[in-house]
Amino acid sequence: MKIILVGFGFIGRTFVKALFNKTEFLKLIDNDFKLIGVSDIEGYLYDENGLNLEKLSTIQKVTEYPGLINGSSVDLIEKYDANILVETTPTNVKNGEPGITHFKKALNKGMHVITSNKGPMVFAFKELIGLAERNGCELRYEATVAGAVPVFSLVKKCLQGNKILKISGILNGTTNYILSKMHFDGENFQQALAEAQKLRIAELDPSYDVDGIDPAAKTVILANSMMGRNATLDDVRITGIRNVDKDMIKIAKETGSAIKLVCTIDDTIEVAPKPVPLNSTLCVHNILNVLVFETDLAGQITVIGHGAGKETVSAIVNDLIDILSKFNSKV
Amino acid sequence: MKIILVGFGFIGRTFVKALFNKTEFLKLIDNDFKLIGVSDIEGYLYDENGLNLEKLSTIQKVTEYPGLINGSSVDLIEKYDANILVETTPTNVKNGEPGITHFKKALNKGMHVITSNKGPMVFAFKELIGLAERNGCELRYEATVAGAVPVFSLVKKCLQGNKILKISGILNGTTNYILSKMHFDGENFQQALAEAQKLRIAELDPSYDVDGIDPAAKTVILANSMMGRNATLDDVRITGIRNVDKDMIKIAKETGSAIKLVCTIDDTIEVAPKPVPLNSTLCVHNILNVLVFETDLAGQITVIGHGAGKETVSAIVNDLIDILSKFNSKV
Repeated sequence: MKIILVGFGFIGRTFVKALFNKTEFLKLIDNDFKLIGVSDIEGYLYDENGLNLEKLSTIQKVTEYPGLINGSSVDLIEKYDANILVETTPTNVKNGEPGITHFKKALNKGMHVITSNKGPMVFAFKELIGLAERNGCELRYEATVAGAVPVFSLVKKCLQGNKILKISGILNGTTNYILSKMHFDGENFQQALAEAQKLRIAELDPSYDVDGIDPAAKTVILANSMMGRNATLDDVRITGIRNVDKDMIKIAKETGSAIKLVCTIDDTIEVAPKPVPLNSTLCVHNILNVLVFETDLAGQITVIGHGAGKETVSAIVNDLIDILSKFNSKV
Repeated sequence: MKIILVGFGFIGRTFVKALFNKTEFLKLIDNDFKLIGVSDIEGYLYDENGLNLEKLSTIQKVTEYPGLINGSSVDLIEKYDANILVETTPTNVKNGEPGITHFKKALNKGMHVITSNKGPMVFAFKELIGLAERNGCELRYEATVAGAVPVFSLVKKCLQGNKILKISGILNGTTNYILSKMHFDGENFQQALAEAQKLRIAELDPSYDVDGIDPAAKTVILANSMMGRNATLDDVRITGIRNVDKDMIKIAKETGSAIKLVCTIDDTIEVAPKPVPLNSTLCVHNILNVLVFETDLAGQITVIGHGAGKETVSAIVNDLIDILSKFNSKV
């Protein structure tokens, strides 16, 4: 199958490295798989025989690869025939663009879509899922929530027959790192934030994380995907962590708890700092993410891992292998 | 598809209840699914049109259902045509029987096998997997390790493309309960064991758990299934928890750790009590089970849940749905 990659940032580049490192394994599933196009803001690369994965693995920008074509991501998607779009552009929590456009163009051409981009799944979940179904395409978004942690595939493939009654989680590594520094090292919010920024765990404008927008977006995707809701960001009661102070941390500690930015989906959808017992499986520290699923058959199932970083590519690779396995014989 | 259940103990009965409660859902996958036979030590029940699941859900022994037939589990498997054997007899860590015989009879007839019985998977893993493959059958054993916790399906369906580099886990709820009582309540081993026995978390002869045989058996299955080993119980360095005393607990506590019966698969295979940092994801308490997978792409992935009890049926149901989905159209 032919793959196009839109977005050559950190996740996109890591994905290319994984394709290169796992080529032998992937060829066992689909001997003809190839990456025929890569686009970024500067233009796109295209080779109908497959781009050179080894060369692509070593560069930081598409301009460093020979033969950059002056055109947009939409051009790449529209002009050439490919089977799978891997979309790794940054999340836009204002309106989900240009991701939504990329997804629609691809799905309307009958391409499967795999993404790490939360924007489209937050703003157009139902529409995109419906479009994929009508076109007989897969729309896979494991990487959008909790990075490397299997979430959607876990429920869909490993907890079949279970009803999901409630989901709790810590879905933002940046705020979890800040709260962990405050808990374990006695720092205040500003000190912990500054340290996170120094380590590039927090961005210079940290509001997307510390005000709870990022975990809220993930919570919306979970609610819609796993619990049949039709939620948007407006349906989430969001409280960030800017007002968490030393007193709150101290009181939590005295009761054997830690303050965590907890996402909850039950009757309501909420993101808010709350005390979490240190001995509960929800209480993970530093940059880790966690989800606790309350189910009718399996009881509580907890899954923990890296919510961001290079590990996220595992989720994209798993989605890709599913699609290669299911469809490669039909192409 | 037609199902036969061999073993009507706690897990078998809970499975029947799940079949009854989830009938509507299961019929969406296979409208013709039915449980045609159930056997236990007293004899077996058989109805080619399907046994009454509602009635079966309310009884404790096969003798309470009308029309008990005088015969063995092997008779039930051999005499009638069914598509799936669900085998929930107790684990025999001496030689894996009678499970191995049940599995072989079924696989040789072309029946798929789903089991919670560790014995056959410990003593005849390669042989049984090979037999299943040659007969085009599924042999599914999600329930054998860590109860309700998705383990095999997690790696196979959610971490595709990952190489498993190391597995650590706590795979025995009884010993984890005892060690948690010792850690949190200051009890000694005998006190904690007595309490676990009172709560029926430990058996009257607790050696299978406290001497580490049960977690070692599970570790063998993991090593063979996920890391391509050809291990038996003899390859596991096993240390139980009988010698864990208050001093060991105290020293662990002073360093921010707790003593846990840890199973490890890397160059060697080991089950032994070890200090585990309280803040690590491996450190779960009471009856919980946990597995930490070290992988090349996803980094560390941790999964936690109930390792025994009624929740185990979730694993059997997931295996069943996989088989119904894959094969029901072919029957």
